[in-house]
Formats: sequence, C-alpha cells, structure tokens
Amino acid sequence: MSIKAGVVGAAGFAGIEAVRLLLSHPSFELRAITSSELAHTPLSEVYPAFEGVTDLRFVSHDDPSLAQCDVVFLAVPHTAALETAPEFIERGVTVIDLSADFRLKDPAAYEAWYKVPHTQTKLLARAAFGLPELTGGELQRAADQQKQGTPALVACAGCYPTATSLAAAPAVRAGFVRPDAPIVVDAISGVTGAGKKATQRTHFCFADQNVEAYGVGTHRHAPEIEQILQAPGRVVFTPHLAPLGRGLLSTVTLQLTPDAPRDIQAYIELYRNSYKESPFVAVLDAGKQPRTASVAGTNRAHIGLALSEPAHVLVATGAIDNLGKGAAGQAVQCANIVFGLPQDAGLAGVALSV
Amino acid sequence: MSIKAGVVGAAGFAGIEAVRLLLSHPSFELRAITSSELAHTPLSEVYPAFEGVTDLRFVSHDDPSLAQCDVVFLAVPHTAALETAPEFIERGVTVIDLSADFRLKDPAAYEAWYKVPHTQTKLLARAAFGLPELTGGELQRAADQQKQGTPALVACAGCYPTATSLAAAPAVRAGFVRPDAPIVVDAISGVTGAGKKATQRTHFCFADQNVEAYGVGTHRHAPEIEQILQAPGRVVFTPHLAPLGRGLLSTVTLQLTPDAPRDIQAYIELYRNSYKESPFVAVLDAGKQPRTASVAGTNRAHIGLALSEPAHVLVATGAIDNLGKGAAGQAVQCANIVFGLPQDAGLAGVALSV
Amino acid sequence: MSIKAGVVGAAGFAGIEAVRLLLSHPSFELRAITSSELAHTPLSEVYPAFEGVTDLRFVSHDDPSLAQCDVVFLAVPHTAALETAPEFIERGVTVIDLSADFRLKDPAAYEAWYKVPHTQTKLLARAAFGLPELTGGELQRAADQQKQGTPALVACAGCYPTATSLAAAPAVRAGFVRPDAPIVVDAISGVTGAGKKATQRTHFCFADQNVEAYGVGTHRHAPEIEQILQAPGRVVFTPHLAPLGRGLLSTVTLQLTPDAPRDIQAYIELYRNSYKESPFVAVLDAGKQPRTASVAGTNRAHIGLALSEPAHVLVATGAIDNLGKGAAGQAVQCANIVFGLPQDAGLAGVALSV
Amino acid sequence: MSIKAGVVGAAGFAGIEAVRLLLSHPSFELRAITSSELAHTPLSEVYPAFEGVTDLRFVSHDDPSLAQCDVVFLAVPHTAALETAPEFIERGVTVIDLSADFRLKDPAAYEAWYKVPHTQTKLLARAAFGLPELTGGELQRAADQQKQGTPALVACAGCYPTATSLAAAPAVRAGFVRPDAPIVVDAISGVTGAGKKATQRTHFCFADQNVEAYGVGTHRHAPEIEQILQAPGRVVFTPHLAPLGRGLLSTVTLQLTPDAPRDIQAYIELYRNSYKESPFVAVLDAGKQPRTASVAGTNRAHIGLALSEPAHVLVATGAIDNLGKGAAGQAVQCANIVFGLPQDAGLAGVALSV
Repeated sequence: MSIKAGVVGAAGFAGIEAVRLLLSHPSFELRAITSSELAHTPLSEVYPAFEGVTDLRFVSHDDPSLAQCDVVFLAVPHTAALETAPEFIERGVTVIDLSADFRLKDPAAYEAWYKVPHTQTKLLARAAFGLPELTGGELQRAADQQKQGTPALVACAGCYPTATSLAAAPAVRAGFVRPDAPIVVDAISGVTGAGKKATQRTHFCFADQNVEAYGVGTHRHAPEIEQILQAPGRVVFTPHLAPLGRGLLSTVTLQLTPDAPRDIQAYIELYRNSYKESPFVAVLDAGKQPRTASVAGTNRAHIGLALSEPAHVLVATGAIDNLGKGAAGQAVQCANIVFGLPQDAGLAGVALSV
Repeated sequence: MSIKAGVVGAAGFAGIEAVRLLLSHPSFELRAITSSELAHTPLSEVYPAFEGVTDLRFVSHDDPSLAQCDVVFLAVPHTAALETAPEFIERGVTVIDLSADFRLKDPAAYEAWYKVPHTQTKLLARAAFGLPELTGGELQRAADQQKQGTPALVACAGCYPTATSLAAAPAVRAGFVRPDAPIVVDAISGVTGAGKKATQRTHFCFADQNVEAYGVGTHRHAPEIEQILQAPGRVVFTPHLAPLGRGLLSTVTLQLTPDAPRDIQAYIELYRNSYKESPFVAVLDAGKQPRTASVAGTNRAHIGLALSEPAHVLVATGAIDNLGKGAAGQAVQCANIVFGLPQDAGLAGVALSV
Repeated sequence: MSIKAGVVGAAGFAGIEAVRLLLSHPSFELRAITSSELAHTPLSEVYPAFEGVTDLRFVSHDDPSLAQCDVVFLAVPHTAALETAPEFIERGVTVIDLSADFRLKDPAAYEAWYKVPHTQTKLLARAAFGLPELTGGELQRAADQQKQGTPALVACAGCYPTATSLAAAPAVRAGFVRPDAPIVVDAISGVTGAGKKATQRTHFCFADQNVEAYGVGTHRHAPEIEQILQAPGRVVFTPHLAPLGRGLLSTVTLQLTPDAPRDIQAYIELYRNSYKESPFVAVLDAGKQPRTASVAGTNRAHIGLALSEPAHVLVATGAIDNLGKGAAGQAVQCANIVFGLPQDAGLAGVALSV
Repeated sequence: MSIKAGVVGAAGFAGIEAVRLLLSHPSFELRAITSSELAHTPLSEVYPAFEGVTDLRFVSHDDPSLAQCDVVFLAVPHTAALETAPEFIERGVTVIDLSADFRLKDPAAYEAWYKVPHTQTKLLARAAFGLPELTGGELQRAADQQKQGTPALVACAGCYPTATSLAAAPAVRAGFVRPDAPIVVDAISGVTGAGKKATQRTHFCFADQNVEAYGVGTHRHAPEIEQILQAPGRVVFTPHLAPLGRGLLSTVTLQLTPDAPRDIQAYIELYRNSYKESPFVAVLDAGKQPRTASVAGTNRAHIGLALSEPAHVLVATGAIDNLGKGAAGQAVQCANIVFGLPQDAGLAGVALSV
C-alpha cells in the first residue's frame, strides 16, 4: 500500500524531520513538500543532507499536488492551521497537525492563551489529540472513522507536553499524586526547539555555553499539560534552553498522597505496565536516569523515576527528541495509527550511541 | 600589604581557578600550589594557559613552603580537609576550605550524608559558613578573630547551595513561603561541575548533545541547602548535567503563603534590598531571566524572579559560574573579608559577552 | 538470505556503530558482540540507546558463538587483528578488519610506522583494501573468491585516508597534480575519532571550545594516504581535533601542473564521472563546500572543489562521518560487496538536517 | 593619566570586546560607545554581563561625546572606516581602526578585493599597520608622531593574518622558505568570527556539530597575509568554521629550502628569539601544539612548530582568540604603544584553564 503524503511547512525544523521520516517510510509516499519562501528550490540546496538522495523541490502552499495527497502533515505556525486544516478535511484529505491549533479542547482556553478566536470549534470537537500512549482511544476512534471514509484530524501533542505527560501521567492517573498540590515541571530543551528563524537567541555565540529559563509562568504548553493530566491551574511550568541541538528532558516533581507507595519499585512496575503496549517508551531501572542523547533522532521516550524522602515526592523524568517523539516522529506514529499501519512503521530507528 | 597564600589541591578545577584568581590578586601573593600527582611539574605544562605567564611548579602537599603561608585554600575532596585543616589552623594558618567537611553545622548530618565520622567537631563549631551575602555575620566574626590573631576557618558554600540559596533566601526569610510545602530545586550544571577526572560521564562524546538528571533525591547538597534556608526535610533537589563547561542555573519553585504578594515587583524590591550591599549579585528586572553565560568566569550571580499563577508560586532562578561564585571566586571573596580587604578585591572581572 | 555476523570489539566507538548498522541490516543477522571488559553485560546497560530494542549482551572474544558466524567485523586496536584475523580466516570466517593491520601493502612500511613486525605477510598479500570507490577491483576479486569459498579479508581504509583520498584521487589519477610537489592535507576530526577511552584529551572540559593540531608529521594515516594516491614521501598530513562528536573534513591542497585546467567545472565533471557508480559520494556544485553535519550518521561523502589562483592550486575538500564512511559504514559497505549484496544495503540513511 | 576613549560600532563582537577591555583598563577611560541601531539602550540590556557593572548606554555614531575623546576604536564594517577615520583624524582624534580599510598598502589591491575605490589614499600612506610583533617599526613611528601632536591612524591586522603571520613570519624572514612555492594556510575559526548578525550560518543548529571550509580561494585576508609575508600571489588560504565561540588556529605549511635546518630545535630558537620582546607570544616546546582554548579571552598567541619529512616542510601553527589578539586585544595593544603605555597595560589576563 502506498499512501500519498504531503508536508506543509516542510522547510522548518519539524517539517524537515517529517520529510526525512516520510522519505524512508515503507507505506507513505512523499509527493509534495511546501514552503512559501522556498518554492521551486531543490530540497538538497536548502538541506544538503539530501544531496544525491532525492530531486524533490519545495512547492508553494497551494500547489495542486497537495490536493492529490491522502494525508498532509501541517508543520505550520499556530493559527495557520486554523485556516488550512478545514480546507484539506473538506477535500477528504487526512490532516496530521503539528501546530497547537486543535490541541486545547476548550476553545476559550485556546483564545486565552493564543489571543485569537478559535474559528473552527466544530472541527476542534472531533479532532483527536495525538499522544498515542496516553490518548490511544481518541486515535482509535479517528482510525475507525478514517476506515469509513471520514478523514481524520489529529492534533499532535507538543514537545514539552509529550515528555512531561509520559513522565507524570501513570502516577497521576493512579491517584498517587496529591490533587491539591502544584505539579512542578522544569524542562530543558535543545535549541532546535527554538525553531529555524535566525535570531540573537538562536545565534551560536549566544546559545552555546549558556543555560537559561524562559517563558516562566507564561508558556503556552502549560494548559496543554494541565489538560492531559486533568490538573487545571496546578501546573507550574518552567522551560529552559540548553546548548544542544535535539533533546528535551522534563523533570516533574509530584507531591504524593500519604498513602502512596514509598518503594520506588512500585512506581516502576506501574509505569512499565502502563506502557507495556508501546514500542517507544522504556521505563528505566531504579537508579538510572534517562539521557536525551540516547533518544535523539528517534521516536523513543525514556522515563526515569526516583523518590525524594522525607518530602514524599516522586521525581519523574522524561527524555525525548523534541523533533522526534516531540513533533515529526509522533506525527508519523499518529498517521500510522490512523491508517491502520503498525505504529512503529518507519520509526524503528535507534539513536546514535556516540 | 602582601598576604602569602597557598592552594592545596591546585590541579583540580576549583583549585586551578583559585590559582588564576590569586595570581592576579592585588593583595595575595601565591607562594605554593600543591598536587600529589603532579609535584615538580610546571603549572604551564598541565595548564598551557599559563605558558609564558608564570614559572610556578606544583609541589607536594607537605611542601615546607605551605607552612609559611598566611592562608591556604583547600580544594581537596571531602574528608581530606578533616585531616588537613586542623594542622594548618594549629600552625596559625588561616584556612579557606572549598570542601564539604565543615559546612554542615550538625556533625550527625555530616555523618549521615558523608558516611564517615566527623572527627573535628570542635573546629566545626567555630567554622564560619562562607556565603557572604547570606552568612555575613559569621564571616565578620571570623574576620574579627583573625584580626586578633586567631586564624579563621571558612567553609565555603557549595555550588548548588550558593545559586539556590541566593535565589530562595530573601523570599523564605521574609516569610512569604509556605513552611509546610516542599521547596523544589531543579538545577543545571556545566560539566566542570563533574570534576577533572576523566570518566565516561565527562567524555566529550557522552557529555555533549546530552542532558540528564543525576543523584535524584540523594545529592549531598540537599542538606546544605536545607541548613541555609532553615527548611529541614523540605528540599527536593534534582541536579542536571548539561553540555557546557562553566555555569550553573538553579530554578527554585516556592509555594507562597496566601498572604504573600501577587505582584512580582514586590519580590524584586525585596531581593534588591536584600542584596544592596553585595557588589556581585544583580536582581534582574521583571520579565528577564539570568543567563549563565553572562556570569561565566566571574564571581557574579544573576537572579530572576517570576510568579506562576493561579498556583501562587514564585519561580526564582539563580545563575552563577560553578567554579567562580560557586567555588574559587567565593573562596577568594571570603578570604578578602577575613583579611579585611574590599570583598571584591581581585574579583571585579566581567564575563565575556560572547 | 541471512548472513550470520559478529562484531569483535563491539564496545568501542567504531564497534558500536557497526552494531547499530548490523541490527537493522536486511541481510546480516547480528549473532555476537564481544568486549573483553564488558562480557555478560547487556548492550543496553552500556549504550542506553538500545534500551527496549534488543536483549543482546556482550560476550568475551573467545565466545563459541563467534565461530558460527559467516563474517566478523574486527573493531580492535592495531596489532590485535594480526592475531585474530588469521584464526577466523582459517575457520572459514570472512573478516572485515577496521584496524590498520592489513592496510599497508608493504610489510616494511607497517613495521616502520607501527613499530612491530608484521607476522602475517602471506595474508597481507591477499587482503583487499576497503575503500570501494577507489579500490573496487580488489574488492571485486575478494567477492569472487568469497563466492568460490575462500573467505575474504578486507582491510577497511582509515577515516582520514578515506576523506582525503576521495577528495584527491580523481585529480591525482588524471595527472593534473604536479608529481614533484607536496600534497598538503589539513584535516579536522570530531572527538569520536579520539576513541572511547576517557582521557584528559577527550574530557569535555578540555575538548570543548578548543581546536588543536596533533601528530604533526607523525600520524600513521600519512603512509596510507600515500599508498592510495601513489605519492610516496609527498603527503604532509596535519590532523586537527575540533569540538564536535562525529564528522571529519579533509582539506587537500594540490599543486596543479601548468597544463591542468583553469576552469573549476572541468574538475567537477571529472569527479562526478569518477564517482558516477557510487551511491554514497556527492560532488557539490562550484561555490559550495561540504558540511560534515550533512553526512553525520551516514555512509555518505560530500566533496567540494575550488581553484586558488594565481598559485594554480586545487583545493579539494572531503566530508565524511569518521565512524560512518570512515569506519563502520565503510565496513558494512565492503561486506555488502564481498557477499554480493547491493553495496548500499542497510546504508541508505540520510543525515539529520538539524 | 586618563585617556578618553570611544568605541564606534560597540555592539558588534569586536566592539563589545573592546568595551570590556577598556572598562577595566588602567589608563583609558571609556566615554562613549556607539551603535546606530541601539542608541540610548543601556549596555547591560544588550549584554547582560555588564548588569550591575556600568550604567553606560549606547549613543549614536555622531554623538558629541565622541569628539571629546582622545582616541576612538573603529569596529565598523569595511568601507565605513573610509568615511569615519578622516573625520576623527582631522579633529585630532587618534584612530585605532579594526576594519580592513587601511590595511592594504596598495590602493589597487584594496579596490580589487573590496570592489570599492579607496578614497583616502593620502591617509592610507601614513597609516601604521597594527601587528606589533611584526610591524613594530611602523607603530613606533606612529607613537613618535602622536607624541608630537599628530594623531595616529593604526590599521589593526585581521584575525587570520595575525595568527598566520605570527606562525609564518620568522621562518619566511630568515630565508628558510622556498620563494617559488605556495604557502598553504588552512585556518579554523570559531563562530564569533562570523559576526553578530543572526543568519542560517550562525544559527546554533547549523553551526554546532559541523565543520566546513568557506571562501576558498576568495577570502579577503589572503592579500593581507601576502603583504605581511611579502609573498605576492603565493598564499593559498582556506578558512574553516568550527563549532566553538572564540578561537582561531592557523596551520601554515611552508616548503623549506634545501639548506634550511632539518632540526626542529633550530626553528624553535629562531622563533623564540624573534618574539623575545613580546609579552604575548609563546613558542611551545617541540612536540607540543597550541590549543585555542588556552588563549581564549586574552591577547596571547601560542605558536607550535613541527617538521614533516621527507617532504622537508615546516608546519607552523598559531593559536589566538580571534576577538582578542585577532581584534580588540590587538587594538588595545596598538593603542598602548601609540600612547606610550606598557604594551600589555590592561591586557595581562590569562585564559580560563577550564
């Protein structure tokens, strides 16, 4: 089976990673890659990794080849998907959206955080949230509809919410976390997370040899995490930028209920059980901590768990590649599910060990 | 005035930074640098930055030149200072200790965390804790004694405790922090923090492009932070390693009392007032976050403050150079105070902007 | 077809990259990975990238499973292969040697540069030199013999010789280079080239933010380059270490004969023609220079060409991944050829664009 | 003595380093720092390293405070100094020019390489070339004139020419180098060398983990090197970009005359003798190679020498900080000389060892 695929916004970091994954995917056939600025330019001119590999050129966003696709991946800035997604859906094209536009179930929350009205509330209502390990039900429903001819719309989870929720959800869902206490999320991202735009912030000479926090108390991924964990108003989210390219580590501090286990092994078993169906999530042994380098370039997530006593707190850490499981990898995984493929089709790669 | 100084354990990372600072200090004269492994080797052979600058050679720990010093800086592993410090003190030599041996006021805490008996409890009782901005009184007493001929023993604060406490103390001391809630400290250190020993952990190919947590719930700096903040059992401390050389950022999440201000400006003023006598601490404007690169190679600390509502939490961030304000710089600052010099003598350097 | 493969010395950097490639190879089946130090340890404990991917454990070098392999990859220090290779060959096992032991055709040259006698001159005489784009004939003969039951011994080219020779050979072979002039090779390698051993040299804090030359006039890859280019005594080789993990760039300055073309396009066509059968080598357009990042993690090589007038010199640059085309990738490519597989089987990967 | 100084173009990388050096200089008093884009902005807002250190603000290029300076440092793009320098000189202000506008003695060469007419040939004729270790005579004449009231104009050497010439000049001047052979210069610069402008080239995600050559055969520093070494048409210059902030290493391959010594010690003595008056240049022992990290943040240069036989070639390597000895440090050194100060005034700093 060959499913015709397109990537809209293919020149950005998430987009180009989707292109890389789709070019070697056994079931998707990449037909169109768009970029408004780079239309007509060969892919290999912009990204020389593809030199000698493909003759693909960027096309404009309205290129007719897109309409012939079975599925499009939207790697566009937020609000842009609000316009683009409905057009594809109407034409019967499945949409895997990497933007934030269809993530927050509550349009009011979207409007509060993104400062624009949500113009597609109907579509929003039927969008599936794409974090397969935690929202598998929604994706299965989308897959069923897809089978019956209704094109799916998947709103893939953001990078920070993915790492954070994979690290926190099993404990929260098991009722081990105090429902009245803040959930403290301190996360660290590589510079690819800041995007392709050349700014002082992403300049090598300012980003290298530096660590800093940013968006403290105001980052738009906070409500997304709260939605997944069903913990409204409780997430205290502080992202940090560190001098590496790919990689995201989320350190989640969860205050436990008095009754929650005081033995780390109990949590490890709980987590392993939660993720036993996922080929991508590995829960490490007690005493080990995940390394972002060990998942870079892949769709994998490594989870570490430790107790901090006497405060009776669980420190759960989740490492992913922000462009992999945090963006393009997850998008392909969601597309696999929607189209009834094995969820790891084209995603079996292992990180470089060095 | 020329004060004769020696550095014991000068070949390690904190030691060599002390050497660099003392060589250009206006009042200290560096007479002896020791290393058991490198005795007799020229300094410039081990650290070529000193090529053409000095003819100093390493000597062994028991070199007679040490005994003629007015002050020694101990940059030795913990437990080693337990043996060394008393010998110097007995001979009338002031000791600035960069190790952990005299930091914890309670010998039982030392023994619990360091797994060895504290054999110098008498000396411990009169040691001054060296974090001048927060323990100025102890250092002033030490300076007074020094003036009267009693050699001071200063136990300089560790790197994580320094950044963390500078970020947290004013709010905690002002009573704005809930006394029943955990204090969550997620901190990130550059690889110099892991020391000079070549290991897989410090290998470029494993450290670069990687972020990971370590020592979760078990790091020995936790009790030190609890002592400074007077918050026994409440600190949840998770250190992380990031791919930069120098630099440490501590992100402290403080749950506020219901009555604590909800206006960030109140905290900024509180902090600026707390540090108004310190030439080294800068509290940034609201909306700004400290960059470790902006304090690298210096004895400075930058503090950032932000509120996260509705959780009513203060996120305080502190950036230092772990080898500067977190080790050798702080040691020189303490020595300045003890000897009645301006506290910024030899420490006025500004970080490279790029 | 499933060809049983083993990797001897699998815990080193070249070894583990061979493991990664073989684990996802369509025709080789990885049966044994050896490490004297790590025997019995699970692969994923040493290299967590394999967490959840494979249950393979390291075995000792003399594990019986090795003898049942059809092919072994030797990723061992030089001189070790002198002992190991003959044993495998005698047992009918094909040997793909990543060490230097069978590279220099002249045993005297080996002895002069490696300071040990070459004890396997008979085997040396029939070893094929493994740099398929330039020594395809030797490899084809080895493949023919293999087909007839004589196990091949391939001595894979070193990392610097690979990048350098790919950049220099077409011009040299075309007679455009002055036969009396030195060939100046200045090459830059990432730190993976320095190997897995933790030393001061590979310590993050010494390797990062630093560039230095090493082994000037004495590096053992010089005679290997001279052998490939048939330029005895003419190669002036200066390798450099730069702060990146993977990647090697060789800049070769070739003094041209007076008759050699003065139009860069002539060289570009010559090179493209030379490499037209290779799926891995891309010769860039005039004005472009290869980026090591664009070939990292792959078996690809990018070549850039520029003229420097009036000196009438060709500056040819070659970028490879030192662990890919410079080691494990090339080894797998050679094995593919020897076993009659498509030479890019299992090697089609494209570098991460960011 | 307090000499009033200004920096024009203070917000760029060379400019801000000049600011840092002048702020702590014992004899210069920094009165004005200009930036057309950032006029009125506090220095510490753009470069937070100065937070709490100074209240200086950027002013526009025509701010009256500049006219009251005794000396201005021009850290402006080439061609801009052609306009600015004469105005200052006319007003009696000494000019230390970091741009390329007054470096090439031959206006025709300037016009050929910079594609603009040289409109200040009269001024050019009396400009001193600023590379004190090699052009000390010119600078001394400028100092003499300055003493007599004629404001000096110093054209500071570029970064690549500085490292290259320091490494090559003693051998060339001693007549050991074949006058008919090319001088091959392969140099590696950190990303600060690419300037402050945020581009794809300086984006962390493209610059990190990458090495590449650029400007092969066309870089404007080639004629400058040829001028210093008096080797017209013979320099083959290939610069490379590597993933570090500060640091420049130039590897110069010099073909020796048959009569030139074959003992490395002869060269080392020659070089040490050549630089015996310079506090900044260290010639390393045989077998050692300079590390850029050991001179980063300083005005120092480390030189390494090695012979490559049988090709009878000297490989000379020079390491500097491109923003230090390669730009702002050298400018301050030249200003020191012109104003009759010790040439290392304000420049005695030693690199961080880690």
